[in-house]
Amino acid sequence: MIKFFEKDPYSPIQYVYEIDKILYKTRSQYQEIMVVENPYFGRMLILDGVVQFTEKDEFFYHEMLVHVLMHAHPEPKTIVVIGGGDGGAVREVLKHDTVEKLYFVEIDKEVIETSKRFFPTVSCEIDNEKVEIHNVDGAEFIKNHKGEFDIVIVDSTDIIGFAKSLFTVEFFKAVKEGLKEDGMFVTLSESLHFHKEMVVDVQKTMGLVFPIVDLYTAPIATYAGNWWTFSAASMKLPLRKIRRPIIAKTRYYSEEIHIQCFLPEKLYDKLLNNRLDW
Amino acid sequence: MIKFFEKDPYSPIQYVYEIDKILYKTRSQYQEIMVVENPYFGRMLILDGVVQFTEKDEFFYHEMLVHVLMHAHPEPKTIVVIGGGDGGAVREVLKHDTVEKLYFVEIDKEVIETSKRFFPTVSCEIDNEKVEIHNVDGAEFIKNHKGEFDIVIVDSTDIIGFAKSLFTVEFFKAVKEGLKEDGMFVTLSESLHFHKEMVVDVQKTMGLVFPIVDLYTAPIATYAGNWWTFSAASMKLPLRKIRRPIIAKTRYYSEEIHIQCFLPEKLYDKLLNNRLDW
Repeated sequence: MIKFFEKDPYSPIQYVYEIDKILYKTRSQYQEIMVVENPYFGRMLILDGVVQFTEKDEFFYHEMLVHVLMHAHPEPKTIVVIGGGDGGAVREVLKHDTVEKLYFVEIDKEVIETSKRFFPTVSCEIDNEKVEIHNVDGAEFIKNHKGEFDIVIVDSTDIIGFAKSLFTVEFFKAVKEGLKEDGMFVTLSESLHFHKEMVVDVQKTMGLVFPIVDLYTAPIATYAGNWWTFSAASMKLPLRKIRRPIIAKTRYYSEEIHIQCFLPEKLYDKLLNNRLDW
Repeated sequence: MIKFFEKDPYSPIQYVYEIDKILYKTRSQYQEIMVVENPYFGRMLILDGVVQFTEKDEFFYHEMLVHVLMHAHPEPKTIVVIGGGDGGAVREVLKHDTVEKLYFVEIDKEVIETSKRFFPTVSCEIDNEKVEIHNVDGAEFIKNHKGEFDIVIVDSTDIIGFAKSLFTVEFFKAVKEGLKEDGMFVTLSESLHFHKEMVVDVQKTMGLVFPIVDLYTAPIATYAGNWWTFSAASMKLPLRKIRRPIIAKTRYYSEEIHIQCFLPEKLYDKLLNNRLDW
């Protein structure tokens, strides 16, 4: 049994996993890619030493990243997923029959190849005919599209590192330009326990650009701090409301979870005003 | 810098903490007690190799353990805290002016002494005149009291180990006998991520004894799985309703959190029927 020590410089707790076997390890143009087998979590994808997901519980993250906005939007047809090379977000988006076109913008095509090879249950929809893959920088892709998208989903690695450009006011402005008039946007924004300042930063930067900004959370066991946040924005429609029938094929997301996952209003207000007492 | 590797046999992720200094280490009649200093969390109490709380974020756990029932009860006067030798639960209970008597039943008096010495902000109310300390086994204490308590709170170590007797049907029956006719009871019940079967076990065992059983959660960064559950029971009154003005002196608990912390009904139903898909 080998031990894998996660290398997350922004976590005050280091997570250590037992590894039965390292199935794959390579270095792409952008990052180190590793696939390991853990006795509890099954296969795990690790990028630059940080666990991205595990076979056992990836659905918590992927469902929550995708389905909240997909149900808040009245008719999501054209979707962009930036990052998420594993295909987990793509799989969830395509559970919605309204979707006509999915731009899948993953800069590192080796992540896609790795997922196809080692994570068939995650990558299963990547070759769906509605999916158009672009192996380019997400910020560059977005800049070239105006008023085209119903929903833009950022499924990047942590805010630090090379995903940083996806959390700037410039990027958010480009997303806004890319959205239709009732378009919506969601991105991960780290943990309310350990990265509260980062959460506030993302929220305030989004607030400079979008008329509606909100925050919801989900419990993700393998992410540092675990109490994981998703920062969401909308051009017109509030995000807490469900506007479509709930799709049946989810394991965690539900109508109840949609309502409950948003930060309660007073707590949210405290967060934005830096009055959270931790 | 030393590293502390947590020894939690029931967690598939091992948590590792940096330690500036081991401030205290001893072995009591019941367990190994250690106090360490961590650069992020401040002082931490570790029992038998498992982190019990940290100075920085103990309030999440202690507030959620105590205030949900203390606000669901119309007039909590006589309270029992079993375990919780650090005094954190005692401190929270005594924020309620209705309280006339608090039986503090901690089998290991060395935990109390350690907390008084190293955690003054946690142990601060242990010597309050309303508190009556009993250094005996919680199950033994409860057996000798009938119809006396408004609320019984179990703040033990993990379900495994020597706290096991606090999770049996015999113990729950003794608690029931100890409660007044509208009495309430709460105990920790591990993580919905990693210990789902234990959660269900506790819930079902409580269901054999109490007319009303419920489940709420809180995000606790230093507990394995993090998505932490509290199993609660009531003799008469449903627990999701707030029956008293919210006390002002909390950092996380609030009216909003009270409502939001309970497991949504369908998810709860799935859990109890072993239909959760993870």
